[in-house]
Amino acid sequence: MKNENKKADWKEKIHEIIYEADTKEGKLFDVILLIAILASIILVMLESIKSFDAKYHNFLNISEWIITILFSIEYILRIISIKKPFKYIFSFYGIIDLLSTIPKYLSLILLNSHHLAAFRALRLLRVFRILKLTRYIGASNTLMKALQASKAKIAVFIFFIVIICILLGTLMYMIEGAENGFTSIPRSVYWAIVTLTTVGFGDIAPQTPLGQLIASVIMILGYGIIAIPTGIVSSEIAKKNIDLNTHTCNTCAAEKHKENASFCHNCGSKF
Amino acid sequence: MKNENKKADWKEKIHEIIYEADTKEGKLFDVILLIAILASIILVMLESIKSFDAKYHNFLNISEWIITILFSIEYILRIISIKKPFKYIFSFYGIIDLLSTIPKYLSLILLNSHHLAAFRALRLLRVFRILKLTRYIGASNTLMKALQASKAKIAVFIFFIVIICILLGTLMYMIEGAENGFTSIPRSVYWAIVTLTTVGFGDIAPQTPLGQLIASVIMILGYGIIAIPTGIVSSEIAKKNIDLNTHTCNTCAAEKHKENASFCHNCGSKF
Amino acid sequence: MKNENKKADWKEKIHEIIYEADTKEGKLFDVILLIAILASIILVMLESIKSFDAKYHNFLNISEWIITILFSIEYILRIISIKKPFKYIFSFYGIIDLLSTIPKYLSLILLNSHHLAAFRALRLLRVFRILKLTRYIGASNTLMKALQASKAKIAVFIFFIVIICILLGTLMYMIEGAENGFTSIPRSVYWAIVTLTTVGFGDIAPQTPLGQLIASVIMILGYGIIAIPTGIVSSEIAKKNIDLNTHTCNTCAAEKHKENASFCHNCGSKF
Amino acid sequence: MKNENKKADWKEKIHEIIYEADTKEGKLFDVILLIAILASIILVMLESIKSFDAKYHNFLNISEWIITILFSIEYILRIISIKKPFKYIFSFYGIIDLLSTIPKYLSLILLNSHHLAAFRALRLLRVFRILKLTRYIGASNTLMKALQASKAKIAVFIFFIVIICILLGTLMYMIEGAENGFTSIPRSVYWAIVTLTTVGFGDIAPQTPLGQLIASVIMILGYGIIAIPTGIVSSEIAKKNIDLNTHTCNTCAAEKHKENASFCHNCGSKF
Repeated sequence: MKNENKKADWKEKIHEIIYEADTKEGKLFDVILLIAILASIILVMLESIKSFDAKYHNFLNISEWIITILFSIEYILRIISIKKPFKYIFSFYGIIDLLSTIPKYLSLILLNSHHLAAFRALRLLRVFRILKLTRYIGASNTLMKALQASKAKIAVFIFFIVIICILLGTLMYMIEGAENGFTSIPRSVYWAIVTLTTVGFGDIAPQTPLGQLIASVIMILGYGIIAIPTGIVSSEIAKKNIDLNTHTCNTCAAEKHKENASFCHNCGSKF
Repeated sequence: MKNENKKADWKEKIHEIIYEADTKEGKLFDVILLIAILASIILVMLESIKSFDAKYHNFLNISEWIITILFSIEYILRIISIKKPFKYIFSFYGIIDLLSTIPKYLSLILLNSHHLAAFRALRLLRVFRILKLTRYIGASNTLMKALQASKAKIAVFIFFIVIICILLGTLMYMIEGAENGFTSIPRSVYWAIVTLTTVGFGDIAPQTPLGQLIASVIMILGYGIIAIPTGIVSSEIAKKNIDLNTHTCNTCAAEKHKENASFCHNCGSKF
Repeated sequence: MKNENKKADWKEKIHEIIYEADTKEGKLFDVILLIAILASIILVMLESIKSFDAKYHNFLNISEWIITILFSIEYILRIISIKKPFKYIFSFYGIIDLLSTIPKYLSLILLNSHHLAAFRALRLLRVFRILKLTRYIGASNTLMKALQASKAKIAVFIFFIVIICILLGTLMYMIEGAENGFTSIPRSVYWAIVTLTTVGFGDIAPQTPLGQLIASVIMILGYGIIAIPTGIVSSEIAKKNIDLNTHTCNTCAAEKHKENASFCHNCGSKF
Repeated sequence: MKNENKKADWKEKIHEIIYEADTKEGKLFDVILLIAILASIILVMLESIKSFDAKYHNFLNISEWIITILFSIEYILRIISIKKPFKYIFSFYGIIDLLSTIPKYLSLILLNSHHLAAFRALRLLRVFRILKLTRYIGASNTLMKALQASKAKIAVFIFFIVIICILLGTLMYMIEGAENGFTSIPRSVYWAIVTLTTVGFGDIAPQTPLGQLIASVIMILGYGIIAIPTGIVSSEIAKKNIDLNTHTCNTCAAEKHKENASFCHNCGSKF
C-alpha cells in the first residue's frame, strides 16, 4: 500500500509539473516545452527549404528524431499522469500531440511518407499551448477584453467590407474584363479586397481609365474606412483604461471607479 | 363579401410576411430570402469562372432557373400583396427586382443574350435588402451614428486628399514623363492616389532619383495623414460611448448623462 | 466729380465681388471661379492624354482659349479694382494668376511653345483659392486646429521615420547588394520608405533570406508605429471635442467648459 | 602651477563645449556636429551611386578626407578633454566614432580597401547623437512616455502577429506550393507578413482560388487588427494628455490633476 501511495505521489508530481505552472518545476517544464516546440517549428521550416535540406539532411533527420522522442515521452507522461487518460487523448491538444509526433515513426514503415510529413506542420498548432502562457502577462488581458467588447461591431464592419468588395469587384469585372486580368467575378472580388485593404499586390491592376477611376474610389474608401475598426477598438481600450480600477465601494458596492478616485462616484462616501 | 374579406386577409398576411419582420413567418421569410440572394450571388460568381462554367454548365443552368422562378414568385407576391403596386414597381427595389429576374426569361426568346446576363449582376444590389436586416444589430447603430456625425469632416478630408493627389500627380508627370509609365496627368494622379493611400500596386513606379524622392514624400505624407480620418471617427465613437446613456432627468429633462451616473449633471437631483 | 464717384463705386463693387464673399454676387463669382478653375484643370489633364489630344485637338484648343480669356479678364479686373495693384501683382496668387494665363498668348509668338505648356499646370495652384473657401465649412476648422496642435509631434515622428529608413536602407544595401535591385544607398532608403509606410510597390523586393527577415522586421515596425501619428491626432481631436464649448464664465472668465456644462468648472458659479 | 591650472581650464572648456549643450559654444558645437554628420551620411550615400561616383570621384574623395579629418579632431578632443579617456574609448559611441573615422586612413595602407568602406556606413549610427538632441523638444517626451507605457502591450501584439503569420504562412505553403512561388515555409511566412501588414509587394502572390480566399482572410485580418496597436497608443497618449499637469496638491500631495483643475481631486482643497 505504501508502494501504491508512492506511485500515486509520483503520478501527482508529474501531473503538477506537466499540467500546472505553479511550482518551480512546472514553470521549468513550460519553458523547456516552449523551447522544444519552437525548435520543432524551426526544424519543419528548415526542412521545407530544399537547398538547406539537401545540404544538412542528416543533421535535420537526427534533430527530427530527438524532437520526436521528446514529444513521445511527453505524450506518454501526459497519458500516465492524468486520471482520465481518454479525455486527454480525444481532446483537441491530445489529437494534435499525437498527429504531430507520429509521422516520423510511420516513415520507418512506409516508404513513400512524403505526404505524412505535412502532418508535422500540425506542430504549429501546439504553439497555442505557448499562447496560453501569455495569460500571465497582464497586458494581453486588457487587449483581449477590448477585442471581446468590440467583437460584434468588428463583425458588422467586416460584413460591410465583404459586401462592398463583392459589389465593387463585380463592377470592375464588367468594366475591365478578362483581357485585363479580371478573368472572373471571384478574382475581381479578390482584387477589390487586395485594393480596399490597401495591400495592393499589383498582380492584377486596372488598365482602362474608367477602371482606374473606380480603383481610385476604392482606394480612398479603403484609406478612409480603416478609421472605423481603429475607432472602435481605440474607444474600447480607452473605456477599459478609465474603468481599470477594480475597487468596490464599501458603502454602496458600486464598481468601476476611476483609477485614482478617493470618493465613491455613486454615494459620495470616502474610500 | 366574406370571400373578399378572406382575400384581403390573405393579402394582408402575405404583406406582413414579405414586407415586415415582426412575426415568426416574416423573420423566416427574411432568412429564406437572404439565403436565396446569397445563393444567386454565388451562382453569378461561379458562372463567371469559365473553366467552372464549362464543366458544370447544366447544373448552373438549372440552379439559375430555380432561383429565377423563386424570385419571380416573390416579385408577383410583392405586387399582389401591396396596396399601391405601382409605387413598388417603380421604386428602387422594384426595378432592381425586375431587372435581376428578367434576363433568364429573355434568354429563351433572344439567341444572343450574352449581354443581358450582365444584368443578373444587379442581383448584388438586392444585398442591400440584407443590409437592412443589420438594423437589428445594435452594434451597427453606433457605427452609423459615428459615421453620420463625422460625415462633413470626412468629406473635407477626402477633398483635400484629391487636391493633393492632383497636384503631386501633375508634378510627377512633369518629372518622370511618359517613358517611365507616367503617360498622362490622369494616370499620374491615379498613381499618386495609389501611393498616398499606401496601396502601392507597383504597375507604375518612379524610376528617376527625383521622382523617387517625391514618391517618398507622398508615402510619408500618406502614412502620416491616415491619422486624420482615424482621429475623427475615433473621437466621434468615443463621444458616442460616453453619451450612450439614454436616461432623461425627471426634474430638468436634461439628456446625455454618463452611463453610470446617479445624479443629474444639469440640476444635481438624484435619479 | 460725380463721374469719378461713380467710377469709384464701380471699382468698389468689383472689389467686393472679386475679393470678398459676403454679398450674393461675391458668392456667385466664387462659384463661377471654382468651376472655371476645375474646368481648366480638367483641360490640362485631357491635353496630357495623347490619344485624346490627337482626336479632339480643336475642341481642346478652343476651350483653352476661352479659359485663357476668362482668366485674363479676371486678372485685369483684379488689378483695376484693388487700391494697391502692385501688391497683388507681386503676391503669390498674383504671380500664379499671371503664369497660368500667359502660356497660351506666348504660343502665338513662339513656334516651339511646348515647354511653356507646362506652366499651365501652375493653374493647379489656383486650387488653393478654392481651398480658402473651405474656411466656411466648420468641420475643416476643427481638423486644422487638431493638426496645428500636433504639428511639433508629427514633425518629430517624421524625423524618426526618416532616420530609421536611412539606417535600415543602408543595412539592406549591404545585405542585398546591387544584384538584387538595391543598387545604391539612396535607392535602398527609398525602398525602406516604401516598405515602412506599407506602400510596397514591389519594383524592388529582397531576395536573400536575411534580407527578407529584415524586411519582415521593417514591415511589422511600420505596421506598429503607424499607431503613433494616429494616436497623436486622435487625442488632439478628442481634446478639441471636449473643449469645444466657447462659453466664458461670467464670474471668473474661465474658458474651455465642457459642451453641456451648467456650472463653471473653475469657480462653481451657475451659468 | 598656474600653467597647469590654465591647461585644466582649457580642457574643462573643451569638455563643456563637446559634451554639454548648456553654453552658447556647446550648442554651436552640437549644430556643427549635426551638419558634419549629415554631410558625411550624404557623402556615403552619393558614393554608393556608381554613376555619380564615376563622375565626381575627386570631389567625393576630397570631401571624404575633410570629413575624416574633422571627425579625427573631434575624436582626439573628446579623448583629451575627458577625465577617464578609456571609459569613452570603449563606450558605444567611442567605438563607433573610431570605426567610422578609421577606414579612410586604412585605405592609404591597404590597396584593396573596398570592404573597409562599408565601415563608413557606421557613421549612420552617429545619428543617434543627433537624436539625443530631440530631448530638448518637449513633443518627443510625450511620445516616448506613451510608447514606454504601451511597450508590454505592443510586444504581446507583435508576438501574436508573428504566430499568426507562421500559421497562415505554413497553410499557404501547403495550398499554393513551390510552383506558385511559395517555395519554402520561411518564404511563405515572409509573404504572410508582407500581406498582413498590408505592404503587398506582389513579388509572391497566390494563384489558386483557395490561396486567394485565404489571402483575402489574411488581408481583412491585417486591415482590422491594425486597430489594436493604434488603440493602445491612442489611449496611452490620451491618458498622458489628461494627466499632463505636473502640479502637486499642497494639502495632500496628490498628483496628476487635470490641466485646468482648480481644486484637488483628492482632498478638495483649493490650489
